Amino acid sequence: MPKEIRLNAFDMNSVGHIQHGMWAHPRDQSPRYTEIEYWQHLARTAERGLFDAIFLADIIGVYDVYGASPAASIRNAVQIPINDPLLVVPVMAAVTKHIGFGVTSNATYEAPYLFARRLSTLDHLTRGRMGWNIVTGYLDSAARAMGLDRQIEHDNRYELADEYMEVVYKLLEGSWEDDAVVADRSGRLYADPAKIHAISHVGRRHRVNAIHLSEPSPQRTPVLYQAGVSTRGRAFAAKHAECVFFATSTKENVRAIVRDVRAQAVGNGRRAEDLVVFLSRSFIVGRTRKEAEEKFADYRAYGSVEGALAHFASSVGIDYAKEDLDAPLRHEQSNSMQSILEAVTTRSTEQWTLRKLLGQMGLGSRTMPFVGSAEEVADEMQGWVEETGIDGFNLSRVVTPEGLEDFVDLVVPILQERGVYKTAYREGTLRKKLFGGASGRLRESHVGASYRHRRVNDDGPDHASRPAVVS
Amino acid sequence: MPKEIRLNAFDMNSVGHIQHGMWAHPRDQSPRYTEIEYWQHLARTAERGLFDAIFLADIIGVYDVYGASPAASIRNAVQIPINDPLLVVPVMAAVTKHIGFGVTSNATYEAPYLFARRLSTLDHLTRGRMGWNIVTGYLDSAARAMGLDRQIEHDNRYELADEYMEVVYKLLEGSWEDDAVVADRSGRLYADPAKIHAISHVGRRHRVNAIHLSEPSPQRTPVLYQAGVSTRGRAFAAKHAECVFFATSTKENVRAIVRDVRAQAVGNGRRAEDLVVFLSRSFIVGRTRKEAEEKFADYRAYGSVEGALAHFASSVGIDYAKEDLDAPLRHEQSNSMQSILEAVTTRSTEQWTLRKLLGQMGLGSRTMPFVGSAEEVADEMQGWVEETGIDGFNLSRVVTPEGLEDFVDLVVPILQERGVYKTAYREGTLRKKLFGGASGRLRESHVGASYRHRRVNDDGPDHASRPAVVS
Repeated sequence: MPKEIRLNAFDMNSVGHIQHGMWAHPRDQSPRYTEIEYWQHLARTAERGLFDAIFLADIIGVYDVYGASPAASIRNAVQIPINDPLLVVPVMAAVTKHIGFGVTSNATYEAPYLFARRLSTLDHLTRGRMGWNIVTGYLDSAARAMGLDRQIEHDNRYELADEYMEVVYKLLEGSWEDDAVVADRSGRLYADPAKIHAISHVGRRHRVNAIHLSEPSPQRTPVLYQAGVSTRGRAFAAKHAECVFFATSTKENVRAIVRDVRAQAVGNGRRAEDLVVFLSRSFIVGRTRKEAEEKFADYRAYGSVEGALAHFASSVGIDYAKEDLDAPLRHEQSNSMQSILEAVTTRSTEQWTLRKLLGQMGLGSRTMPFVGSAEEVADEMQGWVEETGIDGFNLSRVVTPEGLEDFVDLVVPILQERGVYKTAYREGTLRKKLFGGASGRLRESHVGASYRHRRVNDDGPDHASRPAVVS
Repeated sequence: MPKEIRLNAFDMNSVGHIQHGMWAHPRDQSPRYTEIEYWQHLARTAERGLFDAIFLADIIGVYDVYGASPAASIRNAVQIPINDPLLVVPVMAAVTKHIGFGVTSNATYEAPYLFARRLSTLDHLTRGRMGWNIVTGYLDSAARAMGLDRQIEHDNRYELADEYMEVVYKLLEGSWEDDAVVADRSGRLYADPAKIHAISHVGRRHRVNAIHLSEPSPQRTPVLYQAGVSTRGRAFAAKHAECVFFATSTKENVRAIVRDVRAQAVGNGRRAEDLVVFLSRSFIVGRTRKEAEEKFADYRAYGSVEGALAHFASSVGIDYAKEDLDAPLRHEQSNSMQSILEAVTTRSTEQWTLRKLLGQMGLGSRTMPFVGSAEEVADEMQGWVEETGIDGFNLSRVVTPEGLEDFVDLVVPILQERGVYKTAYREGTLRKKLFGGASGRLRESHVGASYRHRRVNDDGPDHASRPAVVS
């Protein structure tokens, strides 16, 4: 049987996510992101399409490099305003049964003791359907909002994130033993103090001595997601992530990255298949190729070049407001645009301008959508999976929710017919659905499992009044 | 018309809240606190009873003074495990239309920039039904979980909470002007950068320079709740709180506290009626007095003296595990028990023991439930409102959810017949429901309103590229 394709609906608790300007399309409903019903419809639609998860991005801070101001981001709703992503998970969980939730949260700014409780609470409420996309942030505007002068330097952020993960693992995996909760009404014993341990952590940034506040949830540690392709980012992913994702580039690049991150995982004592790799991609699908192209033409009339530039300027740290959009791309711009150029065309020696380049993208973003009939979209997806070693796609929203509805109605049945997509959900938690296994817990070979409490002396003294320390 | 009585359902995202041991009762459903359906039933029931709000307590840390260990708290589920209260609000909001949500969050430990976004997100999702109960924490166990050696000293915590409120007001009230969001699809303008301002705060503890991440929600600042009767706590409430609550004591004490906190509010330029005062109380109600008494006898068989002591020990900082439960109360114990003794009996010179005292309470807590027929409960409530100046009650759960169901089915109709309780909800946000008014926003006389952006120079230079600073 060919490899099963995995799918997430990639979204954000905001008006604009990646394809900027789309909110202005008459049928786009993203300005309803503040409404419970909006999220419930999204979740029901994705579950109807048997998606693995709703994947919610997040950003702390505002994109203010373009024009040295957040003005362009604000005008185009480029991820500002942006609401908290964790808080829409419960309402989606309330109207679905199987779909998972991969939600972004920032390891640089959230206190681990309080954040670990949020993860446990959500894993309880969703009955084991939670995932956490670990990010470290990259905006100076966020640093200034959090009492710092500027962002912590890139590799240093990952070092601190490593420490953060250690604290979170200790709390989620090490504090309560599996059978700590007894809930014996007749014996009047809710939990056994001998099986609950204060964790102790003294690190560079965090100092925590505490019992985890929540009792064990179905998965304990939620399924761990991580993005990014930097050298340090890949090492982090190979150690911690169970799902990895990144944006479109060439097949050659993707294949190399996938091979490298899987090899690094193996180097960490994990299996290559312990990582599920997603490519973020937009698809515009029609019943026919013509219908898809007409839809694309309709959508692209709303694409915001200014929005795309505002977003991209903060990503690469170049103020494009100072550039002539119609002048030939200079060398240093071309470098920062390299992965985009690669994706757009092989004619990279052609004379490009910023406007021409972003116009080519079409949808107010620096990524290129795939446009085609349902069969062509299915072909394209299978091609990437077969040729690069990825497992599936984060479907990045365009005009919402119709893009997801189109995909579920038109593409999913074809993928099912071809035998590359599930026809029903597996039972169990998100981790069981993605990786199988009996427990739905982190695999023993995952670093997080090493923080579980080990009973070294089962017939030793009563731990009740002197909680053991997990070091 | 007599004064309208206000009601909140007082609960916690945990097995044990205040009446300890009740989870062991065969009909108690509190061990289902991890389930969405559990919270939705609670919210539907309270809304059926036209309650003003679900009021959720919270605690960061664990009660570990009793026996110098958390063991007694763990055995009796005394607020441990405890899940995040904010995350159950969205599921309750999804199945209700009117009821509000007063949710506890800690001003000592949550970063204001991120917390303000949570408040805005919830106020959006609930369409203006959010309230925030401001606490500062009091447990050393929480401090140790958050990187400190011990709890910050009481009055100092309130000073820092004052600063925290200032930051939150700046973000919620001062960053986005009312008409900043344009959402003009044809003009491709989501929001007007000239009407969105970076707030600037440099204080003792917090340094924030940022645009608030969320667009204006219906209430902006949620309805503000605050508990506590300490001198510093009252001053804080008279400045910030719109709803005040505290636990049962004698009518004389309550009257004095209510009078004082209202007078202090007036001293701050507010009106006495700008504060809604709730008394926390448990009621056990039956169709007849006999039925109520039988219910009480049934419930009290499950009351946990150990649970009550574990809770109380951390509240007052005395390790009752070292005390003889059957010895006469010593003077310093009596002092810490004073408010309880007052509530139990006027015979405060009687020779009390710890066991006798907590047994008198009956339900594994240090508060005394009122037990009676629906008419008697209504009489008791009216008596307190008329004689002390309070506005209503936080109904503290006993055996859940049947206690709330009993109250809604039996007492609410009598209060309605007597004309002291609403027969329908007002339209609008929680603040409109509680205080009337057109805007549903903080009153102009409230300190939070002073942080709104004032346009000093409407025909001045374009602010777009140089955001104004709200000081």
